[in-house]
Amino acid sequence: MSTIFEQLRDDAGGDWTGHVDHRFVRALGAGTLPAASFRHYLVQDTLFLHQFARAYALAAFKSDTAEEMRAATATLHGLLTVELPLHLRFCACWGLDAGAMAAAPEALETIAYTRFVLDRGLAGDRLDLEAALAPCVLGYAAIGRALAPDAERDGHPYREWIGTYAGDAYQAVAMDAGAALERSWSARGSPGRYAALLATFRQACRLEAAFWSMGYAAAATTL
Amino acid sequence: MSTIFEQLRDDAGGDWTGHVDHRFVRALGAGTLPAASFRHYLVQDTLFLHQFARAYALAAFKSDTAEEMRAATATLHGLLTVELPLHLRFCACWGLDAGAMAAAPEALETIAYTRFVLDRGLAGDRLDLEAALAPCVLGYAAIGRALAPDAERDGHPYREWIGTYAGDAYQAVAMDAGAALERSWSARGSPGRYAALLATFRQACRLEAAFWSMGYAAAATTL
Amino acid sequence: MSTIFEQLRDDAGGDWTGHVDHRFVRALGAGTLPAASFRHYLVQDTLFLHQFARAYALAAFKSDTAEEMRAATATLHGLLTVELPLHLRFCACWGLDAGAMAAAPEALETIAYTRFVLDRGLAGDRLDLEAALAPCVLGYAAIGRALAPDAERDGHPYREWIGTYAGDAYQAVAMDAGAALERSWSARGSPGRYAALLATFRQACRLEAAFWSMGYAAAATTL
Amino acid sequence: MSTIFEQLRDDAGGDWTGHVDHRFVRALGAGTLPAASFRHYLVQDTLFLHQFARAYALAAFKSDTAEEMRAATATLHGLLTVELPLHLRFCACWGLDAGAMAAAPEALETIAYTRFVLDRGLAGDRLDLEAALAPCVLGYAAIGRALAPDAERDGHPYREWIGTYAGDAYQAVAMDAGAALERSWSARGSPGRYAALLATFRQACRLEAAFWSMGYAAAATTL
Repeated sequence: MSTIFEQLRDDAGGDWTGHVDHRFVRALGAGTLPAASFRHYLVQDTLFLHQFARAYALAAFKSDTAEEMRAATATLHGLLTVELPLHLRFCACWGLDAGAMAAAPEALETIAYTRFVLDRGLAGDRLDLEAALAPCVLGYAAIGRALAPDAERDGHPYREWIGTYAGDAYQAVAMDAGAALERSWSARGSPGRYAALLATFRQACRLEAAFWSMGYAAAATTL
Repeated sequence: MSTIFEQLRDDAGGDWTGHVDHRFVRALGAGTLPAASFRHYLVQDTLFLHQFARAYALAAFKSDTAEEMRAATATLHGLLTVELPLHLRFCACWGLDAGAMAAAPEALETIAYTRFVLDRGLAGDRLDLEAALAPCVLGYAAIGRALAPDAERDGHPYREWIGTYAGDAYQAVAMDAGAALERSWSARGSPGRYAALLATFRQACRLEAAFWSMGYAAAATTL
Repeated sequence: MSTIFEQLRDDAGGDWTGHVDHRFVRALGAGTLPAASFRHYLVQDTLFLHQFARAYALAAFKSDTAEEMRAATATLHGLLTVELPLHLRFCACWGLDAGAMAAAPEALETIAYTRFVLDRGLAGDRLDLEAALAPCVLGYAAIGRALAPDAERDGHPYREWIGTYAGDAYQAVAMDAGAALERSWSARGSPGRYAALLATFRQACRLEAAFWSMGYAAAATTL
Repeated sequence: MSTIFEQLRDDAGGDWTGHVDHRFVRALGAGTLPAASFRHYLVQDTLFLHQFARAYALAAFKSDTAEEMRAATATLHGLLTVELPLHLRFCACWGLDAGAMAAAPEALETIAYTRFVLDRGLAGDRLDLEAALAPCVLGYAAIGRALAPDAERDGHPYREWIGTYAGDAYQAVAMDAGAALERSWSARGSPGRYAALLATFRQACRLEAAFWSMGYAAAATTL
């Protein structure tokens, strides 16, 4: 029997593949993505992670049970103390300065996706929030797994990035997020809510795709 | 077939009757409630209505559809432009000054009930919020109907108060709230959510009963 | 002595003029804006207004005083019962169907601006929310006044739109919003907060400009 | 020069001392507090801590800077992974079962204080939230220091409880909270906001005092 994530993913169809199989992602896997595109993406992704951490703080606030709160807090704490520092060290290898990145203007695409997620969480409940977060958390895990074989060859420029998301640590984070979504669906879901949750999931997939496109364009005029 | 409100009300059992059949309510119907208790209640109820209006603003904010938003806004607008001024005029007849009431300290019971409702709305979704509001909106309608026959005799001291809640205007407001709750239940409810919604509904009933007890005690030390 | 709005507007410099003097706005005044651009704008503006109403509901929820709550509720009620129906009738004249518009997908620019405003209101206080709303409410009033002389000639295709925002009713709404912002600034502002409020105001101006650009492009690929 | 906390504390006068010098606190220090009162308090304090963790999650969500977010998250993470388990082990020594405590009904006083704090944080900004939290975090540190000398004698029944709050680890948490409040005051405070912040601080002190009274009464009828 399929999980709620699998149902949403399959029903999202082209919106899902438009995200996880975006030309930015394919070029990343092939190692042909221009460095300028990758750097542009990394800067916006740093700004994105700050808002993403706020979304997990919101999930902790909106938790009904101690178990839900611990799970959201563990992700939030991990984001701030492990992922974000790792991300910044990784960016430094690409010549990007932490201070400069924090001061960079947010792109329209970064604002749109992050604030959409936060708003779904405040307008709705934890299940709405998790449906908006899933294309990101679980999408990156799918991308990591899909690109991992490509990245094994020596000298692949994006080997480390792919390795992070294909690695056990991140795959476990994604699995936890999937399990949390499943628990929320069991506790608060219903056939009547499915259409709205799918609409949220699909919108988040499209906003992810817009984020990749922004990275690909690289020279994209930010706000 | 029963509505979601009827199910919640029936399953709440003694928590529901502890609210709508509280000794404050019975004394109000019999006309034997001490004037000091009634005045104490009126002052806190004025402070309560301000927070209650915020809860309907929150319902408007959390609306998914234009219809939901219009319904919540109509209630909010009606509260501020019709009910609250009526309430203040009524209080004036009981010798209570609007300015003094606004400056009165909120009782523990007033804070507990109102902030509990607002928090349910932010921790959860619109359905959680409406389940927390229902004992108030629909409970007052039930009380109005129950006490109406008693209040018909000449010289009943609480005739006007009872008349307000028994009257067509308030009964229509309550019916709209019931219909909105039913719509939310259809859109977002499920057997899996029922226990949590019932817990919210019962807690709100008990907080209403505590509010009546505070009014009854009259001399209750506020914070 | 200048108001807080005048200070923000003047200090926003090119971000403010990039909004109120955008080529979409100039073409609207000259009557040369392609009808396709205008129609594209109208559809997204309808979706925008729904979120905008939620922002005023949030302002009502976040109100400390009864006066603040009444002001926010009056705007919210006016938006839903006067402006939105007027807007829909106006759209109908341009051949746009209400149902079709409500079902249209939100553009990236619509999502970015509206959710940014809502998030500022939840992350911060009412003053932060009002600083994010000001470029819209007060910007449209400035645009209405600036374009009014142009729109007087017979046969100007956008005469009615310009007349709405130049008209007394809308100018009064904008003046009220400016007065409310001034009161919030008096109650909660300080020199130490000015830089952050200006950053919010400028970001909102840039998001408005992006919204105009989206309308201008007309054929813009939405999400 | 005094800190913002010292100003609030001194201006709160009897509301502050009514909290930190409550008869429950004095009896705790003297070792004369009935065990039934202490146990009643511990059960409600466990429920309190769950909501308190939500307040720090809200502070993380409402953070403007990465530093603010890290500070709030560190407190939240510490609460859930250190304090709460310690608290539960401590409760077990007093014969209280974790499962039973989690299922205990919240007292009116517990609901009132916790939801008041959360609402201040949502109605206002981070500074409003911190002003509502300060009487708890910094009040317990003051109580710990004040009672520490009393608790040194052998066989003092509340030695461990007092030692926890007098100890270096908790004192450091309180000092961090004070520093965070000071930073928020620098960033967002002003003479014009002081009266409202003091009103919040005093209300929170009175709600703390009501919480102690609830514990003292022990047999208090909960909802």
